[in-house]
Amino acid sequence: MNMQSKTTGVVAQRLAQARALMSREGIDAWLLPSADPHLSEYLPGYWQGRQWLSGFHGSVGTLIVTQEFAGLWADSRYWEQATKELAGSGIELVKLQPGQQGPLEWLADQAKDNTVVAVDGAVLAVASSRTLASSLYARGARLRTDLDPLTELWSDRPTLPTHAVYEHVAPQATQTRGDKLARLRSALVERGADWHFLATLDDIAWLFNLRGADVSYNPVFISFALIGPDSVSLFVAPEKVTSALRGTLESEGITLRDYVQIGAALREVPKDARVLIDPARVTCGLLDYLDSEVSLVEGLNPTTLFKSQKSEADAQHIRQAMEQDGAALCEFFAWLESALGNEPVSELTIDEKLGAARAKRPGYISQSFATIAGFNANGAMPHYRATEAEHAQIEGNGLLLIDSGGQYLGGTTDITRMVPIGTPTHEQRLDCTRVLKGVIALSRAHFPRGILSPLLDAIARAPLWAEGVNYGHGTGHGVGYFLNVHEGPQVIAYQAAATPQTAMLPGMITSIEPGTYRPGQWGVRIENLVINQEAAKTAFGEFLKFETLTLCPIDTRCLVTDLLTQQERDWLNDYHAQVRRRLSSLVDGDALAWLELRTAAI
Amino acid sequence: MNMQSKTTGVVAQRLAQARALMSREGIDAWLLPSADPHLSEYLPGYWQGRQWLSGFHGSVGTLIVTQEFAGLWADSRYWEQATKELAGSGIELVKLQPGQQGPLEWLADQAKDNTVVAVDGAVLAVASSRTLASSLYARGARLRTDLDPLTELWSDRPTLPTHAVYEHVAPQATQTRGDKLARLRSALVERGADWHFLATLDDIAWLFNLRGADVSYNPVFISFALIGPDSVSLFVAPEKVTSALRGTLESEGITLRDYVQIGAALREVPKDARVLIDPARVTCGLLDYLDSEVSLVEGLNPTTLFKSQKSEADAQHIRQAMEQDGAALCEFFAWLESALGNEPVSELTIDEKLGAARAKRPGYISQSFATIAGFNANGAMPHYRATEAEHAQIEGNGLLLIDSGGQYLGGTTDITRMVPIGTPTHEQRLDCTRVLKGVIALSRAHFPRGILSPLLDAIARAPLWAEGVNYGHGTGHGVGYFLNVHEGPQVIAYQAAATPQTAMLPGMITSIEPGTYRPGQWGVRIENLVINQEAAKTAFGEFLKFETLTLCPIDTRCLVTDLLTQQERDWLNDYHAQVRRRLSSLVDGDALAWLELRTAAI
Repeated sequence: MNMQSKTTGVVAQRLAQARALMSREGIDAWLLPSADPHLSEYLPGYWQGRQWLSGFHGSVGTLIVTQEFAGLWADSRYWEQATKELAGSGIELVKLQPGQQGPLEWLADQAKDNTVVAVDGAVLAVASSRTLASSLYARGARLRTDLDPLTELWSDRPTLPTHAVYEHVAPQATQTRGDKLARLRSALVERGADWHFLATLDDIAWLFNLRGADVSYNPVFISFALIGPDSVSLFVAPEKVTSALRGTLESEGITLRDYVQIGAALREVPKDARVLIDPARVTCGLLDYLDSEVSLVEGLNPTTLFKSQKSEADAQHIRQAMEQDGAALCEFFAWLESALGNEPVSELTIDEKLGAARAKRPGYISQSFATIAGFNANGAMPHYRATEAEHAQIEGNGLLLIDSGGQYLGGTTDITRMVPIGTPTHEQRLDCTRVLKGVIALSRAHFPRGILSPLLDAIARAPLWAEGVNYGHGTGHGVGYFLNVHEGPQVIAYQAAATPQTAMLPGMITSIEPGTYRPGQWGVRIENLVINQEAAKTAFGEFLKFETLTLCPIDTRCLVTDLLTQQERDWLNDYHAQVRRRLSSLVDGDALAWLELRTAAI
Repeated sequence: MNMQSKTTGVVAQRLAQARALMSREGIDAWLLPSADPHLSEYLPGYWQGRQWLSGFHGSVGTLIVTQEFAGLWADSRYWEQATKELAGSGIELVKLQPGQQGPLEWLADQAKDNTVVAVDGAVLAVASSRTLASSLYARGARLRTDLDPLTELWSDRPTLPTHAVYEHVAPQATQTRGDKLARLRSALVERGADWHFLATLDDIAWLFNLRGADVSYNPVFISFALIGPDSVSLFVAPEKVTSALRGTLESEGITLRDYVQIGAALREVPKDARVLIDPARVTCGLLDYLDSEVSLVEGLNPTTLFKSQKSEADAQHIRQAMEQDGAALCEFFAWLESALGNEPVSELTIDEKLGAARAKRPGYISQSFATIAGFNANGAMPHYRATEAEHAQIEGNGLLLIDSGGQYLGGTTDITRMVPIGTPTHEQRLDCTRVLKGVIALSRAHFPRGILSPLLDAIARAPLWAEGVNYGHGTGHGVGYFLNVHEGPQVIAYQAAATPQTAMLPGMITSIEPGTYRPGQWGVRIENLVINQEAAKTAFGEFLKFETLTLCPIDTRCLVTDLLTQQERDWLNDYHAQVRRRLSSLVDGDALAWLELRTAAI
């Protein structure tokens, strides 16, 4: 209680200082997004100013401060947490809901003649800045992006991370930097560009076959890249790169420059350059360094499409990583089953034991995201994370949802399984059965090459919709190759815009993870990763199908197997036979026994 | 042969006259779309200038004439016909293919500095004119929309049709004009408009509960409507309206003005008006009459959304119309089965007999589109129409595809069934079976209220995609209530843009018509109409389901019934039981015997 009063007192004091600064600078409204100059999903501490100023620690939320008002926009995942953390701070929680006004629209709506809105251009996407600026302009208001008030306000601001950069080498790196750069240059020519500016960390890590540890869970490093007709520059803090690596890169024609030199370098881009940028993936603050005469060619970063399409050589490494990951899961689940009822097991124990099982496996680097282990009601929060302060013991009856993944040199994993605790109810098993039907329906689907991925979602959801059930998250996100566990451009989600860039192409890896969440009761999600494979070329065109990559039993004790059709049974039995065949040589003892027991045919 | 030479000679002469006019007017390129001022699907003769000038009689195609070139853009449906009809005319067939450059893009691409492109603004949608004008402007070229060269060139141009307008009355008209107008006015207020200009004939017919016969198959009449804050004006040729009907309408506050007065009326709209128009459904030539100071509010015509959502009272009439239509089909199919092998039956006979069977039914008005009766290879052309000159005899073995529909006072029908002729091959039956699986999968689906309709298409196609089969047309189009057989805004087609206006709402009627077309061999399509019904309100939201409206047996002799799952068998048996129950009292003799035979459970 003391702790909380102190925090809110601090937040109130910070807000007062912010308002004084705004007054002095003639700013009517200040917007702080959860963003950095790389528009990453996970932010280094230096860019967590919204968290510092508001006291809200959720990873996604937007703060708006005016002289009379302060509001934090957050989606349903964070309402409970935000309500607690914002209590007494003077900051109002604004519940962000699909189809309703977001913070940018609210700002535009509130703006009057001569209102000045400030957002640090360093962390505002070009596309967002254009939308906001034009809607403000329509009301006689103005957007200012040249100021980061945090520089003055935040005296103990963290420094940027300084983890070493390392090479992703063969055999797991299956294409050389040189080949990737050549392919990128061809794409630039095709689009009529001769320069390219890249700010997204996974694009850069992929392009240069380099990895780092600057960002939680994503093996990337803070950097920019600028490709010109005769030059390739990588902007990274010099102390992160060993002289050996520097030598290697320079011998390949890659110039290393300091991270903080990016502005100067952009300023030097010649006026007749045609620069390809992705307006959704570059911030306006950086773009402003370019001379106003430089021509922009706008579109998806070519590397985003390249890296989404894994080669067969990549796929071979991923299959091996999946086998190691599956073996670690067998060991973990065997332990879990023996421990339950014999020793205290909490949601936190799950995370520890899973991490330990994976850490033993060859090629393992780190978790690919924070483990979600949610028992009963906690499982109903799709992005739940157990903490020291608040977590459940796994005891009694119900369902335990475990969503976890690892980064391996040869691939990134992401898997969700349901564990029956004691005796799950019939209703709980019905939910698991329907979700599995969704997984199977989509896993079995063939589809035209190039179909826009959001259009496939109905196949997974139909078995749930039939029972009046639905879920708010997407069915599938793209997954990187020893890179981010969330990547684009494809997305299997009927809520997403079916833009041309979401087209399904061979080699793309996507999750299939339908779910059912009953707030306060339980949650169900079953998740496999799948890779797009060629299925057929016929008179009607080319067709793709999914190869399931994830290898781990789906616990049939959670199911009402009578409700499965013969096709569904066949799919499940075939899957389990494959899981057993591919994992049995990688486990022994209890883990092997568990694998054999849990892959028995139904 | 003589005939054809004569035609091409005439076309060449007309082109020469057109080029002389273009020269005189300083026009470099003249584009003639298949369109009229109402942007209707079927055009009155007066607006078939593209056909007159090119000699190509297909219903959709765009002609572009320059001094050196003349080209007709047509999609795959028309390639065979266009190749024949354009031979020797000096007009090139340009094959229009999905994802490739269309005529507007071609024009923009060809344009140079100072090029003048002419399109009659009277028939060019506002949205298209804006796109074309801005792409021409980008190349220093200019769009001219103030001239209809046909006025001078086409001396024997047909006059506009003069069929009488009549009332759609209760009980089939289930809502009064007054109520519809009040609802429209509320929608205008919601959108911030006080005026509304309507040019689409089905919107006008629906709004005023009036019908006509000016356009083939669509029971509409040539007209405009202009709604102001205190006025409702209907623009229609005075001779079409009886004095009694005029009196009725005027007594309800509706002013009748001559069709040709629309320009003058638009010119009189006050400068401070805020006029709601749909830029895709109003032509630029008409819009140009508005004072440039008038504000436009752009969006879907509210009536388009209103008329798409049939009330339960409408649905009751539609169910009755479907019963009458189904009874007519029983009679027809009973005749067909007895005739085959005993008397000559051609694709043309099918059309005659079907029409005769429907004509006997109460409430029948006309066909709702031209019957498609295609035997074997002819069935492989999705929009095939048999003619006196070219049609097939129904004999030997194979599949006959029959797609037909009727306009009834209480609804519009549209149905496709497959008929086995002799002994269809296993491959033909496989195709029918897969198509039926698609029909059943989508017919059984439940889905969230408001889902964008293109997102449902994968459910119907999955059984076909699984076998490497696909089809180029959409799976479902909206259908009017004693109105156009094709209406929006919903469309079940993965090729269509999933825009917000395609959302699925209760009462919408859509076709479900997957197909398979093997060029030169055979074609399969099975089509039912379905209406959106509320399925459930649960913690996860509102769900809709389809009620199948169409009542006619699906011939099981075309199927490989072993490949149907139990669910699919159950669906088919339930459907057939319902068809038999609802039709048996409306037929007798051979038709009743046929109904009983063809609805036997499998």
